[in-house]
Amino acid sequence: MSLTLSDIQAAHLRIAPHIHRTPVLTSATLDALCGGHLFFKCENFQKIGAFKARGAANAVFSLTDAEAARGVATHSSGNHAAALARAARLRGIAAHIVMPSNAPQTKIDSVRRNGGLITFCAPNVVARETTCARVMAETGARLVHPYNDYAVMAGQGTATVELLAQAPDLDLVIAPVGGGGLLCGTAVAAKGLRPGIHVIAAEPAAADDAARSFASGTLAPVAPTTTIADGLRTALGERNFPLIRQHVDAVVTVSEEGIVTAMRRIWEVLKIIIEPSCAVPYAAILEGKIPVAGRRVGLILTGGNVDLDSLPWLKK
Amino acid sequence: MSLTLSDIQAAHLRIAPHIHRTPVLTSATLDALCGGHLFFKCENFQKIGAFKARGAANAVFSLTDAEAARGVATHSSGNHAAALARAARLRGIAAHIVMPSNAPQTKIDSVRRNGGLITFCAPNVVARETTCARVMAETGARLVHPYNDYAVMAGQGTATVELLAQAPDLDLVIAPVGGGGLLCGTAVAAKGLRPGIHVIAAEPAAADDAARSFASGTLAPVAPTTTIADGLRTALGERNFPLIRQHVDAVVTVSEEGIVTAMRRIWEVLKIIIEPSCAVPYAAILEGKIPVAGRRVGLILTGGNVDLDSLPWLKK
Repeated sequence: MSLTLSDIQAAHLRIAPHIHRTPVLTSATLDALCGGHLFFKCENFQKIGAFKARGAANAVFSLTDAEAARGVATHSSGNHAAALARAARLRGIAAHIVMPSNAPQTKIDSVRRNGGLITFCAPNVVARETTCARVMAETGARLVHPYNDYAVMAGQGTATVELLAQAPDLDLVIAPVGGGGLLCGTAVAAKGLRPGIHVIAAEPAAADDAARSFASGTLAPVAPTTTIADGLRTALGERNFPLIRQHVDAVVTVSEEGIVTAMRRIWEVLKIIIEPSCAVPYAAILEGKIPVAGRRVGLILTGGNVDLDSLPWLKK
Repeated sequence: MSLTLSDIQAAHLRIAPHIHRTPVLTSATLDALCGGHLFFKCENFQKIGAFKARGAANAVFSLTDAEAARGVATHSSGNHAAALARAARLRGIAAHIVMPSNAPQTKIDSVRRNGGLITFCAPNVVARETTCARVMAETGARLVHPYNDYAVMAGQGTATVELLAQAPDLDLVIAPVGGGGLLCGTAVAAKGLRPGIHVIAAEPAAADDAARSFASGTLAPVAPTTTIADGLRTALGERNFPLIRQHVDAVVTVSEEGIVTAMRRIWEVLKIIIEPSCAVPYAAILEGKIPVAGRRVGLILTGGNVDLDSLPWLKK
């Protein structure tokens, strides 16, 4: 098993009825500031507010009826959990979501609103994995990992299939990297559809396991981190890393200040709401890590689920 | 002179090269909450961040070369000033903007960035009008009023021409009302293109001169107000009022709390940035002022220029 362009194209046909074909925004103001031509793929407008709707839908709708009948399970508590609950509801099957007992109420609400069945556990990795294994043993549900899963990666890659149709002749695509699910889908889709294109991953310097792994050729662990880009705190998956080495041209890192500046700039100029994790590719441009002058550059805006009571530029 | 559908259609051809054809967003979540089908026309994504780019462009590009050569002038300090400066720059003529000496720096910057020539005056109505008259006398510049002007109204109506093409078969369009420029353009376009359609105006109860004027049949003055919908604090124009009486079906009012709730809901669910003034039509739905169940409803989202350091739900 691995991941190919045709897997991603098949995923796109499979999930098209269940997702938004999100718009691509451009801005003369942002282009003038960097000298390049930027094309923002707005997955913040996607179902459940994030690209995770794509991968979860592909995983759920790829199951045989017999597999599906026993339901699906995951121990992610973020956008993937809401996305998996939604996809399961659309297929009419159960989604078992294992969440730590201290999960934020907004995340609990989002899973419940989508019909997910929550099992709470102690807030540590061992309890999450043990509890998830128990739920799977009891129900026969199948694990849908948030990124270390080829069907999920194929679903995430469908955003890039759309982007390259909406903004032809791109020279470069930039995606953020956390576990690597989006990045693998993006890279395989982009290189498959347009062999000369560059694919660059951007991550917080405060969670630079992908950059270190890419440089050393050996999967590095992620140190505990409090980066504001909370969607990118996870370690690279073992299925993701070989694909990244094969298809990604570079991994660049950005500062925490750069992420906040980029996030605010996109809010102000594009008039859209994006999460901190989502601002990381544009932060790499602002910090001069990626030359964009005269180039046509696609950026995947990954999600827009933000706590509007707690904006980073208002924190003291 | 008055305002007709063909004026608006001619305006649309005239300004099309200079404006964005903004997208229309929909949301299954917002539809489920109200039972109707809502179509949000996103003028927050318009040039200069507001629909005002349309009316100013139509006014400037409607001038003869001889008229244009002497420039244009206005004493608005908001989005109209930036829009007029931009339109004048595109035509290569001068825009004289009279602003009070205490205008916020962001508004000054926005006019300057668009090449406007600012004349400061004392912060009162008499000084603004006197200063504007002097500048016009000295330069020969032509006044472009922010709303009491048929060319401006025709330009604002072009948003509705696009909306009715993007979202066919609407039963109802809702627009906010301040001076009435947008509302007149919206109503004449909507009734002209689709005679059975309803057009409803929404305004803050704290600045309800349009509702009182509409009810009494006599143009009422606006009392000093601090409504959060700062774009709607102005009094209805004398050219606007007869058109509103002729083409608008109802004027409804909303509370200040309703405006903030509606603004936040749109940020959270649609993931877009809108101004308080812009939330007024959706507030009217939330407060049950307009029955929408089973109906296809267009809402004009007027602008997205917000101070991100000062959000209304974070004020104590």
